[in-house]
Amino acid sequence: MSNITAPTRFLEANGEKYAYRRFGKGPGRPLLCLQHFTGTLDNWDPAVTDPLAREREVVLFDNAGVGRSSGTVPKTVAGMANHALAFLDGLGLDGCDVLGFSLGGMVALQMAQDRPAIFRRMILVGTAPRGGADIMHLDKPSLAGPLADPKLRGYAVLTKIFFAPTASSQAAGAAFVGRLALRREDLDPPSGPEVAAAQMAAFRDWERPADERFADLKSVRQPTLVVNGVHDEMIPVSNSFRLVEHLPNAVLLVYPDSGHGSLFQFHESFTRHAAAFLSADSPSASY
Amino acid sequence: MSNITAPTRFLEANGEKYAYRRFGKGPGRPLLCLQHFTGTLDNWDPAVTDPLAREREVVLFDNAGVGRSSGTVPKTVAGMANHALAFLDGLGLDGCDVLGFSLGGMVALQMAQDRPAIFRRMILVGTAPRGGADIMHLDKPSLAGPLADPKLRGYAVLTKIFFAPTASSQAAGAAFVGRLALRREDLDPPSGPEVAAAQMAAFRDWERPADERFADLKSVRQPTLVVNGVHDEMIPVSNSFRLVEHLPNAVLLVYPDSGHGSLFQFHESFTRHAAAFLSADSPSASY
Repeated sequence: MSNITAPTRFLEANGEKYAYRRFGKGPGRPLLCLQHFTGTLDNWDPAVTDPLAREREVVLFDNAGVGRSSGTVPKTVAGMANHALAFLDGLGLDGCDVLGFSLGGMVALQMAQDRPAIFRRMILVGTAPRGGADIMHLDKPSLAGPLADPKLRGYAVLTKIFFAPTASSQAAGAAFVGRLALRREDLDPPSGPEVAAAQMAAFRDWERPADERFADLKSVRQPTLVVNGVHDEMIPVSNSFRLVEHLPNAVLLVYPDSGHGSLFQFHESFTRHAAAFLSADSPSASY
Repeated sequence: MSNITAPTRFLEANGEKYAYRRFGKGPGRPLLCLQHFTGTLDNWDPAVTDPLAREREVVLFDNAGVGRSSGTVPKTVAGMANHALAFLDGLGLDGCDVLGFSLGGMVALQMAQDRPAIFRRMILVGTAPRGGADIMHLDKPSLAGPLADPKLRGYAVLTKIFFAPTASSQAAGAAFVGRLALRREDLDPPSGPEVAAAQMAAFRDWERPADERFADLKSVRQPTLVVNGVHDEMIPVSNSFRLVEHLPNAVLLVYPDSGHGSLFQFHESFTRHAAAFLSADSPSASY
């Protein structure tokens, strides 16, 4: 019942072979987890997935062209949403819950617009609406510095860019990286530059607003929990402000002293809030 | 153990006689509750105070010149903070928790700056930092209409201006007004126009920023929970965004489908979150 040990499985659907993991059980609906920029199945923190798996199945998913999934990484969020819908159809999952982190939150929003009945409740962490501001500009100084630092190799760069520059947040980042390293076998290959380039194209497309900025959010009526770290350099918290201002039924939870990876830094709090939100049965997002 | 029945008490301190109520018990620190514009002891919703009183003493307070407290309503938040500090000193309460709603949140912020050790944990609902925007402009159309409507008398106007214009929020507003009416005896006199005028002067003063806007929040290091309804017309949610961006240790919780009175509309959720926050013992505001 852990992402440290759950076997990777494969599903043939939509002419592709999708890599995924599925573990946990309980009374809750299955929770589809949609991953961040260049992230694979191995980037899901067991301190987040495993507590949630105690009350439901957790389904981790490599979108097309990522990890061991076949195909090409789409250059739009809409293309990624198509793959995720085909994956859920192939798995026979209808009306599940979703946890979308960063790029994964955008994919979840697009899926909810493309097929409104697909999700019952949504958790969107560190993400942005279409037409959001300052989405993943890795060339700005706060991100370009760590990304170009030759002393930061592998996961160490995540500590710098996912966490705030305080001692407490950096310590949480080191613990996060340590937890990711607990899985030793059956690993995804890390994403290469072609994955990054296609996903970055999708971010640039997502920044362009629809006809009326944020009007597309009005149709997303699922109870939604929006979560963000207040010092998020990758997708600033203002994007979460815009989400709750325009989504008709969303609660916002903002964490202090944290960046993009607030859910990993405050994993005990986050999983407690997420579980309370997912187990609520009210039409309101309040929990 | 309820604000429906708790007797009003009086404390002589600072040359004034302050009206207050004190009820509840449990392992938590006492919780000082600081009230909104023109509100008295009778404006505290028992659905908010009473669940919190199951784990701690709840202390409701009429500032100078309000309800049955003697004296003159100060025309600055700093003046109100002086009275509240004198009241706590007279009561012998040091290092309590605080729930500040609207004007009461401003008073709590000022007290925390004037005497940093006075509060252990702070809950600030529907309030604004010094230098905040669009604070209590009752002349704007969304508020002036209900306030001038002769059909809306007494508490009925609160349903309009504290709640969002949806059926669900208005129904919550009617329930709130019904709960306020449960207390029948030992009532405060409603606030008159001189109370309103002085408090309004304090809002206008509070809107003027300090030297560097929001820099004064850096010294408020208490773990803080900031709460707001997303459609707050009286003190817009953007003020709560500014609070968590500048307070060093604050969690933000924003409710959908609600206005200034979000804590009353979602009283079950709010008291659950508030109790979890207050009973946490971490140096972080996360709970």
